[in-house]
Amino acid sequence: MHRLSLAIAATAASLASALPADAPPPQVPATPDAVIAAAPASDWRRISRYELLVMDLTPDAKGAPRRVVIQLVPAPFSQKWVDNIRQLVSERWYDGLAVTRVQDDYVVQWGDPDADDKTKAKPLPRFIKAVPESDYTSPAVTKNPLRNPKTGWTNAIVDPYAMTQFWDGWPLGRDSGVSLDKGPRNWPIHCYGTVGVGRDFSPDTGTGAELYAVIGQAPRQLDRNIAVVGRVISGIEYLSSLPRGTGPSGFYKTPEEYTRIKQVRLGVEVRDLPEYEYLSTDSPSFGAYLNRRANRMDKFFIEAAGGVDACNVPVPIRTVKK
Amino acid sequence: MHRLSLAIAATAASLASALPADAPPPQVPATPDAVIAAAPASDWRRISRYELLVMDLTPDAKGAPRRVVIQLVPAPFSQKWVDNIRQLVSERWYDGLAVTRVQDDYVVQWGDPDADDKTKAKPLPRFIKAVPESDYTSPAVTKNPLRNPKTGWTNAIVDPYAMTQFWDGWPLGRDSGVSLDKGPRNWPIHCYGTVGVGRDFSPDTGTGAELYAVIGQAPRQLDRNIAVVGRVISGIEYLSSLPRGTGPSGFYKTPEEYTRIKQVRLGVEVRDLPEYEYLSTDSPSFGAYLNRRANRMDKFFIEAAGGVDACNVPVPIRTVKK
Repeated sequence: MHRLSLAIAATAASLASALPADAPPPQVPATPDAVIAAAPASDWRRISRYELLVMDLTPDAKGAPRRVVIQLVPAPFSQKWVDNIRQLVSERWYDGLAVTRVQDDYVVQWGDPDADDKTKAKPLPRFIKAVPESDYTSPAVTKNPLRNPKTGWTNAIVDPYAMTQFWDGWPLGRDSGVSLDKGPRNWPIHCYGTVGVGRDFSPDTGTGAELYAVIGQAPRQLDRNIAVVGRVISGIEYLSSLPRGTGPSGFYKTPEEYTRIKQVRLGVEVRDLPEYEYLSTDSPSFGAYLNRRANRMDKFFIEAAGGVDACNVPVPIRTVKK
Repeated sequence: MHRLSLAIAATAASLASALPADAPPPQVPATPDAVIAAAPASDWRRISRYELLVMDLTPDAKGAPRRVVIQLVPAPFSQKWVDNIRQLVSERWYDGLAVTRVQDDYVVQWGDPDADDKTKAKPLPRFIKAVPESDYTSPAVTKNPLRNPKTGWTNAIVDPYAMTQFWDGWPLGRDSGVSLDKGPRNWPIHCYGTVGVGRDFSPDTGTGAELYAVIGQAPRQLDRNIAVVGRVISGIEYLSSLPRGTGPSGFYKTPEEYTRIKQVRLGVEVRDLPEYEYLSTDSPSFGAYLNRRANRMDKFFIEAAGGVDACNVPVPIRTVKK
C-alpha cells in the first residue's frame, strides 16, 4: 500500500472500459485528487474568518505548537449554539480549560473539568441561553432531486441512515418530514472531524461550553440527537493522536492526563491564520469529485465500488496565499 | 455528552411508543450494551488461539507494555495471505520491524522500513508465495435472504457499497456476481480496526510482510482491492494514538519516529493471553443487538435513525476467565 493515496492518471483505455452509468466525459481527471487539482478558481469559495474557531492547545512535550482550526456550521443550522460559542470565545471562557475525554473510535471532548461539581464549576456568562431540542434540525434548505440541476451530477447519497445532500459545503441529512407530520427537514451529519455540543440527558441540549470532535467511524446515530456546530478543518491530528482515557467512556482519570487549552479565538482575531477555501458543492468540480470517489479509477484500484458513503466524500478544503 | 455510551433501560412506555417495524418483543433489553450483557453463554463462541496474532510493540515512554491482539480472518477468506503471515511469525520475521506510517483518519502501517531498498531489505523466507488477485473475494458463503432464518432477525445491511451480511462473526460484503459472469461472491469489508495486506500496484498483491490497520472512517473503497486478513480485537489504541507521520501519505520522515515491534507471536505461543469470545452472529442476541444499534432507545436518544452502517455494528468480543 505504498502509494495508496497518490493520484495517478489511469490510461485512456482502462478509463473507457470502466465507465459507470453516471460517467463523466473522458476529459474529466481520473482521480479525486486530480479533479481537485484541476478545479478552476471560480469553483472555490472563501471561508469567512468569522466562521472559524482557532483553538490553541498548550505546546506538546517537545514545545511544538498545537493549533486546531474549526469551521462553524452556517445558518440556518445550530445557530443558537453557535451564538453561544462566539459569546464564550468573546468572554475568553474556554481559555485554560482542558481536553478531558478521548474515547477510541468515537470522540475527543473538551470543556470545564469541574463542570459536574457545582462548588467548583466555572460560572457561565449570563448571556448563555438554553436551546430547544427542536433546533437539532432545520426546515429543509436542500431540494429533492438526486441530481444537482446546476451541474448535472449526482447530488444525493442514500445510506441506511438517511438521504444526504451536499449544500453550501456541508453534507446534510434530509427526510420527508412526513413521519412527524411536518415538512422536510435537513441536518448536518456526523462524520470524522465533526464538532458537536456535549450534553446530558434530554431535555438538556448543552450550551456549547463543552464540545467534542469525532475521531472514528461516523457516529451517525447521533444525527438529530445532538447539535452539530462545526468541523475540524486543520489540526485534527492534535486531538486524534492524544492518549485514550482509561476511565468509563474514555474520560481521563486524573487531571495530570488532561491536555490544556491555551486559548480559543475567532478567526478574525488571529493575525497569522491562513485564508481557507472550500470546493463549492454546487460546482461541476465537486460533482466530478463525488463521482470519482464513488468510482475509483486510480491505478491502485482493480474493482470500483460504484458507490460511496457521504462521510467518505470529505469536502475539499485548502489554504491560499494572500 | 457525559453519559453518551452508558446503557440505561428505557421505560416501557417510551419503548412501546418507539417500536420500529422490525421491533423486538418488549422483553428484549432496550440498549445494545444491555443486549450484550444479557446474552446467554450459549450465544458466545470461543476464538481459537491459533487465529490470534499477538503483536507486542516496545514499551511506551513510561515503560508501559503495548500489546495489540489481532484476530485472523477465517477460511475461506484471504487464506493464502494468512498462511504467509503464520509462516512469517514462525520465522520470527516481524520481530524488530517497525510502524512506519500513521495517516490520520486512514491507516497505521507496519513492516520492514527498508522494504523499498533492495540493498537493505530484509529477505523474505523462501516459503512466502505470491497470491492471485482473484483471492480478494471468495465464492459466496452467505445466503441471500435479508432476514436470518435461524433467528428471524434482519441479517443484511444495504449501503452505497454493497450488501453486507454477518457470517461466523464477520461482516461480509456480497454481490450477485452477475456483472462478472460469475456466481455470487463474498468478501470481508474494511471497518475501523480491520487489518489488511499492504501492496504496491496491481498485479502485486502483497505477501503479508507489510500490514496495516484502519484508524478512521471505513475505507470501503479498498474492499475487493486489497486483502483483508484480520481485525484488531484489543489494543487498537496503541496504534491509533501514535503521532501522525508528516511525510506523504503519513509515512514518518525519520527512523527516530518509528515505533518498534518487539515481537509478533501466534496466540498459541503466548502464555499470558486471556481467552476471547465473540457473540455468534447467528444468535438471537446478535439479531437483537443489530436491531438495537439501528434503533437506539437509550435514554440519551431522542430520535432513532432506523438504520445503521455495517461498520457501526462491531461484533461484540469479550475476554473470559479461564
